[in-house]
Amino acid sequence: MNFASDNVVGASRPVLEALLAANDGSQTAYGADAFSARGEAMLADVFEHEVTVFLVGTGTGANALALSAITPPWGAVFCHAESHVLDDECGAPEMFTAGAKLVGIPGVGGKMAAADLVATLERFPRGLVKAVQPSALSISQVTEAGTLYTLDEIATLSRIARDLGIRVHLDGARFANAMVALGCSAADMTWRAGVDVVTFGATKNGCLACEAVVFFDKALAADFQFRRKRGGHTLSKGRLLGAQLVGYLGNDHWIANARHANLMASVLAGGLAGIPGVRLAWPTQANEVFAVMPPAVDEAIRAAGFRGAPWSSLSLPPGFEIGGDRFVRFVTSWATQADDIAGLIAAAGRA
Amino acid sequence: MNFASDNVVGASRPVLEALLAANDGSQTAYGADAFSARGEAMLADVFEHEVTVFLVGTGTGANALALSAITPPWGAVFCHAESHVLDDECGAPEMFTAGAKLVGIPGVGGKMAAADLVATLERFPRGLVKAVQPSALSISQVTEAGTLYTLDEIATLSRIARDLGIRVHLDGARFANAMVALGCSAADMTWRAGVDVVTFGATKNGCLACEAVVFFDKALAADFQFRRKRGGHTLSKGRLLGAQLVGYLGNDHWIANARHANLMASVLAGGLAGIPGVRLAWPTQANEVFAVMPPAVDEAIRAAGFRGAPWSSLSLPPGFEIGGDRFVRFVTSWATQADDIAGLIAAAGRA
Amino acid sequence: MNFASDNVVGASRPVLEALLAANDGSQTAYGADAFSARGEAMLADVFEHEVTVFLVGTGTGANALALSAITPPWGAVFCHAESHVLDDECGAPEMFTAGAKLVGIPGVGGKMAAADLVATLERFPRGLVKAVQPSALSISQVTEAGTLYTLDEIATLSRIARDLGIRVHLDGARFANAMVALGCSAADMTWRAGVDVVTFGATKNGCLACEAVVFFDKALAADFQFRRKRGGHTLSKGRLLGAQLVGYLGNDHWIANARHANLMASVLAGGLAGIPGVRLAWPTQANEVFAVMPPAVDEAIRAAGFRGAPWSSLSLPPGFEIGGDRFVRFVTSWATQADDIAGLIAAAGRA
Amino acid sequence: MNFASDNVVGASRPVLEALLAANDGSQTAYGADAFSARGEAMLADVFEHEVTVFLVGTGTGANALALSAITPPWGAVFCHAESHVLDDECGAPEMFTAGAKLVGIPGVGGKMAAADLVATLERFPRGLVKAVQPSALSISQVTEAGTLYTLDEIATLSRIARDLGIRVHLDGARFANAMVALGCSAADMTWRAGVDVVTFGATKNGCLACEAVVFFDKALAADFQFRRKRGGHTLSKGRLLGAQLVGYLGNDHWIANARHANLMASVLAGGLAGIPGVRLAWPTQANEVFAVMPPAVDEAIRAAGFRGAPWSSLSLPPGFEIGGDRFVRFVTSWATQADDIAGLIAAAGRA
Repeated sequence: MNFASDNVVGASRPVLEALLAANDGSQTAYGADAFSARGEAMLADVFEHEVTVFLVGTGTGANALALSAITPPWGAVFCHAESHVLDDECGAPEMFTAGAKLVGIPGVGGKMAAADLVATLERFPRGLVKAVQPSALSISQVTEAGTLYTLDEIATLSRIARDLGIRVHLDGARFANAMVALGCSAADMTWRAGVDVVTFGATKNGCLACEAVVFFDKALAADFQFRRKRGGHTLSKGRLLGAQLVGYLGNDHWIANARHANLMASVLAGGLAGIPGVRLAWPTQANEVFAVMPPAVDEAIRAAGFRGAPWSSLSLPPGFEIGGDRFVRFVTSWATQADDIAGLIAAAGRA
Repeated sequence: MNFASDNVVGASRPVLEALLAANDGSQTAYGADAFSARGEAMLADVFEHEVTVFLVGTGTGANALALSAITPPWGAVFCHAESHVLDDECGAPEMFTAGAKLVGIPGVGGKMAAADLVATLERFPRGLVKAVQPSALSISQVTEAGTLYTLDEIATLSRIARDLGIRVHLDGARFANAMVALGCSAADMTWRAGVDVVTFGATKNGCLACEAVVFFDKALAADFQFRRKRGGHTLSKGRLLGAQLVGYLGNDHWIANARHANLMASVLAGGLAGIPGVRLAWPTQANEVFAVMPPAVDEAIRAAGFRGAPWSSLSLPPGFEIGGDRFVRFVTSWATQADDIAGLIAAAGRA
Repeated sequence: MNFASDNVVGASRPVLEALLAANDGSQTAYGADAFSARGEAMLADVFEHEVTVFLVGTGTGANALALSAITPPWGAVFCHAESHVLDDECGAPEMFTAGAKLVGIPGVGGKMAAADLVATLERFPRGLVKAVQPSALSISQVTEAGTLYTLDEIATLSRIARDLGIRVHLDGARFANAMVALGCSAADMTWRAGVDVVTFGATKNGCLACEAVVFFDKALAADFQFRRKRGGHTLSKGRLLGAQLVGYLGNDHWIANARHANLMASVLAGGLAGIPGVRLAWPTQANEVFAVMPPAVDEAIRAAGFRGAPWSSLSLPPGFEIGGDRFVRFVTSWATQADDIAGLIAAAGRA
Repeated sequence: MNFASDNVVGASRPVLEALLAANDGSQTAYGADAFSARGEAMLADVFEHEVTVFLVGTGTGANALALSAITPPWGAVFCHAESHVLDDECGAPEMFTAGAKLVGIPGVGGKMAAADLVATLERFPRGLVKAVQPSALSISQVTEAGTLYTLDEIATLSRIARDLGIRVHLDGARFANAMVALGCSAADMTWRAGVDVVTFGATKNGCLACEAVVFFDKALAADFQFRRKRGGHTLSKGRLLGAQLVGYLGNDHWIANARHANLMASVLAGGLAGIPGVRLAWPTQANEVFAVMPPAVDEAIRAAGFRGAPWSSLSLPPGFEIGGDRFVRFVTSWATQADDIAGLIAAAGRA
């Protein structure tokens, strides 16, 4: 069983069925179809706010486009030093913003501390011509370390940014996992906490390829249709995206998927943590388990047919050393079976 | 019935079924899945050539990425004055090439004449520092006017380009329709005629979102994986693209789809041409009919529930005037029903 | 004597002297020096308007920066089909705008006709997502053909643009030559005629390297300091630019220079036109003479040590054929000697 | 007296005289003039190597262009965390490379340690598609802290880079100051130490605006003329740059200027260090003094009419605290007078 990521599985059943149900008949192209319209309306309900939504097929596309809407070419985007936008998108934000600079802020557990954000911002005074201009703050929720910002933490970071005229982006590749884990609403985690634009990820949590860029202020989105088009991210058969979103959001399916994934991760984390010699690099707060294990445990897990992703990080807790151990990420998803979790734990325990 | 485009319909059955069949189980992410691999292998058979293939979700993404692989930021891309890359992609080629210039060459029926290409190239001497450098030729097949280049014409244009060190791109958004209409092989229409890189479109002809960028020389594709990634065009669940391609190419399904669409267009063209006052702007050679009609005919067609796309063009034949008539494009697809064609013709004839 | 261009000579004496006079002592760097401030204030007087001015060292830099301030990456810049921004800047406008498209409009004598601008704009409806958005109009004055727009013509083109929300740029590489020839004020030729931003060229008319980007609405210039800096066009020792400008504008020196150059061209044009077999492609309205000559005349001129620039153009008057003749551009400048003009005419006449 | 930077003064006499001497007569435009040719030939002598040279007017332009020649849009440039290319160019390298990422490596005294470079490079494995690709190393010599890399240090850093296929750029904004201080040749400090391309700064050390981008392998420079042109950095009257360079390099004038500036800094550093309470943040190795002073000393210096630049840095030595003191940079130049140095020291000493 493959726990390397939550994108190694396909779509969940209701998403697939929505796709099938949307296939017949003609629909206006380029995002003006009935399914996209319905999905967008559903997002307004989800967020309890008027929203301007743009559906795209990838998280990298969504993030880069979202950042480009709030960052000029001479802007700075402040983000965690190991964030996806900085480390894992091969420079897409730089491409879509036409050259903005991503400023990484280190922090334990994938989280940016408010004090560190403040200190960093002091190095970028607005109007200093030789320096890029402070423009955007990008927060990942769930973080790259599988941890969560509290609502207060998001609100604090956002306030620091907004007070300086900096817009706030939330990279919600695992939005549902975070929301469910916090037991909050989508509104609480976004606009109520000062977020301007969200990458609302659906791909990892049950879709095949569907991410929504969600704006709460349509003025920010004024040019977005042109950005999306010239980025090649406007699907001609927009129903593919719209239908997935409808299937995903309908009947709280997305919430159920995320609850399941989080539960599986929680069980896995608990099981692994109980095995002598196994440590968790960070607490498991959503659907990712970061385990540091003796090589024998890692080998036993592999031998039993389970696969995680070898990991490394600069944001381990102070004093936490990998040493001779192995650092592995395990990600659960809507498709994870309890039996597989049990099997993995058992295999690890036998080592 | 909506004839505005061939992207107003969904996926054909075998494509959907391939998608469903690919859904279960885990697959490595980011295009390293078994379905993408199989689809790419099938393309090697289709093209009778070793190919390097990159699957993406949109034609605009595919074209812009393909051009960026053969055009530096200071390069010129020569294309028809009304080509999709020039007119209909909101500047995507400029974005992905980081600023190259698209040089439009007028020509009747959406086709570039060899003499006009030669004359244009003379204005762009290589090494003249103040001018953008001749880098790429982009040919659309099927053209924007629904017409076709003969194999000889493609070969001639390619030879002119290659003799000057210019690479050749073929925008095959309707690749299958063209190939079937010419009765040639995919190889004949591409590398045998001097084409370096192809946008092999599958979306319009039966998929939901699947385009393949196909290189015949892998050296040209050396950096393409980075280009695709930073463009946000590398799907995490690559099986979505791979499975569609497998379903599309299997059992010559794509050829059957294209044959059907072309046949429907042929019947429609014949029927409309027989109605007094109706003229065809250009011959119907693939799956598009460009009709110039008295308003009454247009109204009758609309009243009967049929929808085309109002059109305009700078590449009408010399002396061909629209005058008080209406210019409408009708596009057929794999999903077009013969009854609908008959109904449209009948409605037009009643006017 | 070299008549190939007006950039083959150095600086005129008052400009050099201003440069020398500015050399001693310390000045704040990066354009905040006293000379730049004074030059900018002088431009406010010249234009009889509050201006926001940015000095740079090249016309290509000035044009590309100016266009980038009024054109988004998905914008279209409308300009003459043989304009400098389109043909002679190796894609600088595309680079600085991050990918905008320059749409060339043909026209006799380097001039865009109002009707042709209107017809072109109709092809770019605002809000059509697949197309680049109408953003800027760029007019060259003096044109690439050495001709002039009348004030009414500029006003008409500007009005067409502004009514559609399109900003107007004037490429004044030979601003002084045009102004003097029209006998108008700088204000008449710019903001009074609807121009938003000017490339005020001083290099060709007496400086070594000095171009001013002049805005009449400072809101348009809000981000320009960052654009100039990241383009590498903010000189550390800004006095180099400021001092040239002060020397150039002081005592109407720039006007005297332009008058002289225009007069020389006028004499040359008259002289050449009187020689059997010699034709002028376009009327000489400023400081450029475009002569079409029998080869023998061209050879005689060369043999006498005079050098022009071999030329070609797509905007010759209808019916005007080069045939077996030679097409040569002669440009006069502040440094041109009457004796040289006489010598050139005499040489041509002897042929 | 203004010690805020070495760009607050004008040009030294021989440079001005060369400029004057080059003013008369006609010269081919766009860098093909005799003075540029001569200056470029002189650089070949200076570097004892065949060189391909491109003159431009600003250091930011030179650096950004140089980096763009060795870094693709998806590349990473490794540089010190406080380097000029990273902090002080408003994103110019990102603009000219079309989106590359600058990766800052912290290090005491503005210097990157070899071990830190190695550790950083390990995070950027070549071929990892989601990450930007290791492409360039940029070293500043003199550093941002006024310190110097030894020749061995440059060679070591270069070797680390080159072994991984990474090209090496040296930002020599204060090239002469560094070379003179090290007592080495230009060749020793560049190609003999593994450097591929140099920004050879002349502006700060006696010119008004003249920087040379110097390549030792002309293959790397193959496209540079197009890059320079579209960046707007090709001066039409290239003699302006060429003549300055000729005056600068002739008679070892540049070396004399640098020696003088360094000597002045050395005297200033010694004087300030002898004043109770004054500390030097880093050793003065070229023409910059970074002093940390009690406020009273700073006030006394200002009151006496001397001006430095308030400073801050992340690369202070471990344990070095600014506390309640003031951190000020003083830069000397070819124009600095010994009397002014004495006066500044005396003023400080009186506090």
